[in-house]
Amino acid sequence: MKESTPEIHKKDAKKSFSFALITISTSRYEKYGNPASPDDAEDLSGKVMKELIEAAGNRVSFYRLVPDEKDSLLDAIFFALESSADIVITSGGTGLAPKDLTIESIAPLFEKDIPGFGELFRYKSLEEIGTSVILTRASAGVIKGKAVFCLPGSPNAVKLALSKIIIPEAGHIVRHVRE
Amino acid sequence: MKESTPEIHKKDAKKSFSFALITISTSRYEKYGNPASPDDAEDLSGKVMKELIEAAGNRVSFYRLVPDEKDSLLDAIFFALESSADIVITSGGTGLAPKDLTIESIAPLFEKDIPGFGELFRYKSLEEIGTSVILTRASAGVIKGKAVFCLPGSPNAVKLALSKIIIPEAGHIVRHVRE
Amino acid sequence: MKESTPEIHKKDAKKSFSFALITISTSRYEKYGNPASPDDAEDLSGKVMKELIEAAGNRVSFYRLVPDEKDSLLDAIFFALESSADIVITSGGTGLAPKDLTIESIAPLFEKDIPGFGELFRYKSLEEIGTSVILTRASAGVIKGKAVFCLPGSPNAVKLALSKIIIPEAGHIVRHVRE
Amino acid sequence: MKESTPEIHKKDAKKSFSFALITISTSRYEKYGNPASPDDAEDLSGKVMKELIEAAGNRVSFYRLVPDEKDSLLDAIFFALESSADIVITSGGTGLAPKDLTIESIAPLFEKDIPGFGELFRYKSLEEIGTSVILTRASAGVIKGKAVFCLPGSPNAVKLALSKIIIPEAGHIVRHVRE
Amino acid sequence: MKESTPEIHKKDAKKSFSFALITISTSRYEKYGNPASPDDAEDLSGKVMKELIEAAGNRVSFYRLVPDEKDSLLDAIFFALESSADIVITSGGTGLAPKDLTIESIAPLFEKDIPGFGELFRYKSLEEIGTSVILTRASAGVIKGKAVFCLPGSPNAVKLALSKIIIPEAGHIVRHVRE
Amino acid sequence: MKESTPEIHKKDAKKSFSFALITISTSRYEKYGNPASPDDAEDLSGKVMKELIEAAGNRVSFYRLVPDEKDSLLDAIFFALESSADIVITSGGTGLAPKDLTIESIAPLFEKDIPGFGELFRYKSLEEIGTSVILTRASAGVIKGKAVFCLPGSPNAVKLALSKIIIPEAGHIVRHVRE
Ligand SMILES: [Mg+2]
Ligand SMILES: [Mg+2]
Ligand SMILES: [Mg+2]
Ligand SMILES: [Mg+2]
Repeated sequence: MKESTPEIHKKDAKKSFSFALITISTSRYEKYGNPASPDDAEDLSGKVMKELIEAAGNRVSFYRLVPDEKDSLLDAIFFALESSADIVITSGGTGLAPKDLTIESIAPLFEKDIPGFGELFRYKSLEEIGTSVILTRASAGVIKGKAVFCLPGSPNAVKLALSKIIIPEAGHIVRHVRE
Repeated sequence: MKESTPEIHKKDAKKSFSFALITISTSRYEKYGNPASPDDAEDLSGKVMKELIEAAGNRVSFYRLVPDEKDSLLDAIFFALESSADIVITSGGTGLAPKDLTIESIAPLFEKDIPGFGELFRYKSLEEIGTSVILTRASAGVIKGKAVFCLPGSPNAVKLALSKIIIPEAGHIVRHVRE
Repeated sequence: MKESTPEIHKKDAKKSFSFALITISTSRYEKYGNPASPDDAEDLSGKVMKELIEAAGNRVSFYRLVPDEKDSLLDAIFFALESSADIVITSGGTGLAPKDLTIESIAPLFEKDIPGFGELFRYKSLEEIGTSVILTRASAGVIKGKAVFCLPGSPNAVKLALSKIIIPEAGHIVRHVRE
Repeated sequence: MKESTPEIHKKDAKKSFSFALITISTSRYEKYGNPASPDDAEDLSGKVMKELIEAAGNRVSFYRLVPDEKDSLLDAIFFALESSADIVITSGGTGLAPKDLTIESIAPLFEKDIPGFGELFRYKSLEEIGTSVILTRASAGVIKGKAVFCLPGSPNAVKLALSKIIIPEAGHIVRHVRE
Repeated sequence: MKESTPEIHKKDAKKSFSFALITISTSRYEKYGNPASPDDAEDLSGKVMKELIEAAGNRVSFYRLVPDEKDSLLDAIFFALESSADIVITSGGTGLAPKDLTIESIAPLFEKDIPGFGELFRYKSLEEIGTSVILTRASAGVIKGKAVFCLPGSPNAVKLALSKIIIPEAGHIVRHVRE
Repeated sequence: MKESTPEIHKKDAKKSFSFALITISTSRYEKYGNPASPDDAEDLSGKVMKELIEAAGNRVSFYRLVPDEKDSLLDAIFFALESSADIVITSGGTGLAPKDLTIESIAPLFEKDIPGFGELFRYKSLEEIGTSVILTRASAGVIKGKAVFCLPGSPNAVKLALSKIIIPEAGHIVRHVRE
């Protein structure tokens, strides 16, 4: 049972991780183009994620703002996966509207699906937003040895996902997907 | 952040919706043929749904009873999607038996899956029926700009799904899938 | 409504079921080869499952230890499905590491997916292991008229799955998938 | 070997078949709206198909012109399948351009794929257009007991497909898919 | 370029192969049950295959007759794959009728598809049966390190497939899939 | 019918195209690492492709040698797609051996499949190598607005594919996928 002894895992584990953030929003992209950081694009959800990531001792090593278009989104994902980032997070485009294309674009790339993420995210959102949780298709998977999380675009949603699930589990996730 | 301001959404939103109901039951179909309403077919689940829908100020604009056969089911779904209904609901055929073909027949048509519906439905059923929730494959998705919900056939199941999830979220759902 | 009257079902139902257990562990396989029972392979999770199954009046009719390799795993599944077992359970290989191949190997064989099992398993694991539940892809489905459950490899995980979900629901499951 | 005796089949077989034709062309749709026949829309490929079908003693029982949009296309397919037509044919939208959505929209509905149709169509097109045959994704399948053929939009392509493959095989196809 | 030198390959190659034959025919199954060889079931296609295989110095090591039912078919495939056979061949059930379930049942198990087999089989059938080649969905793939060929049920079809494609390529195929 | 007038197309069309070449060979990768061109790695197939491409007035703008590993292969594909290349070609790893992973790795990324390429390549290979054509899974598709061709690793195979299909059709292909 050695491989599941938490003590050993914790010693091995990196203490700090780098994140790639991709914000998906046609309106903001049309207004701000290619900003260097969430602050340059009034990207409130991006700012919330960056603050939570840094407050936990991690860092954002990649940031990109893209419109709700499959090709732009895939470009951003490919560069994020090739970058030094340990974990990739997208926000936006996970709803049920025709323009919401994030899940359609990214989920076919998942080599392993992480079904528990979407389930847990919606379960934890229940007390905040009630049955509206059914409107989000938030999901996660592994692509080329990195976990990719697809979050809704709202600041509250990304705050919950980052602070209650992704940041606490970052160590486990990074270790497992690379094992 | 305008598109998520609830006030604006509420003003825009239709107050009342029309539903298409499809009941899937070979035994009742053999006995009653093509009834005009749930009352004409001793379709208790259909009646429960109709009452809940009307009590909430909505209406049933389409009703069909079909046997557990893929072709009949697809026929009914196609006509329901072409009808004026805002939301389509099937009941029956979501279990694990060989004859249960609803999910096999309809899920491949989903242009967007709504994973949160099945999760929330089973979560909310837990206190009513305990771990038997794993026996249902209830699920939902978007086809041709309309949300389609596939519910189990029991009156209690449709009551829970309609009163606790679908009717309260009808406004959001209709607005989002058409956006 | 006759087909859902619990009294009738209970009278019909078999009281006792036979289980096929497949433990997936390359390290143990390399050390113990083809053991006849979990006791012969220091297979703690296998032992936990066997004890719970027998304590509930059921029995283990098939046991196999295989490495984390798709072909070995499929061999074991095929023989388990051809055996007299009513229910098939695998343990191990459901994580996110590249070597974890259980879901990749078995899920494509599911004729019907049982989405509620993975959801309920992760929900019930939440209080034991918190947000780490997202690390498991535990799932279940129906293959050739038998339910197949794919569990993580840890003794705590199999204990929870067997005692809180699978054993209590065994009667319903077996009856439904064969119906 | 009785079921393959050609004499018996020929006696049984219907002599004449009805076809549903769906022409997919955004430019023509914008110009002509909802024409009643190919002649009302300068739909040259539609006219070629109609002439070949009628010259062989069959008839066109359904005609629709739709733009290159998934929803319009699915509407047309659904109504064609519900109509009295024995065979459904679409023309247009099978190329490699982003606007070509016919295969994406229709192939997921195929209950059985008919791989030999695309192969034979491209093989027979080789002497007419040479290696450009790789530019077409023409394909066919069975939906709800009817064969559906997705052809390119050019008059030469539909002429070859109808006169060399579909019309000569109509009897076999209709009999087999309904058998 | 050594790995493609034919001389070396030929020296290495086994000279003789064993085949598993599965005949799929509900009518014959109902009449003959579980025959030990094609001769015991008036299985003309089975006899043709056996003769061609033996005439080429190979042997049939496994034979089974099953009805057109998914479960029976999967049973037969599983046992054939577990047997000593080098190559597995099914005949029957590849047409377009609702009862034709061979491709639906077996193709989802293919770990690698062999698209060229179906193409070549239909191309070589063209001069024998003309455009009727589009009625067959004959296909092949690799399952658990063995090539599986799904042929139509007619004696002429299996004769063409065996004598013109499968037997001449048996050496290459077996060596490649195991490589 | 204007859009199919060849004269207009020819005037519009770019005369010259840039190609990305990816050679997939574990043995050569282990010996040569990251060569700048096919000449630096005894990559005979790479050299054949480069010569044919340049002889036709086109150029190779991207070259990479990778082992038969999914992650390395996806890396190379992603960078090739992000490069200035008009067309991407891989060679190697399309066979039936367990180590052959090119199709498994790349085909799931195809937004549009180009079924005619594999068919035509195998058809044209028939007279060179006979029925051994069934051993190759060569295929093509569109990813992010670029055509990607997956060829076998042998010099004869790439020569046939480039000189008889890809180079003659380059102009059509590039124009169509971007249209
Ligand atoms: Mg949004
Ligand atoms: Mg494990
Ligand atoms: Mg047949
Ligand atoms: Mg090779």
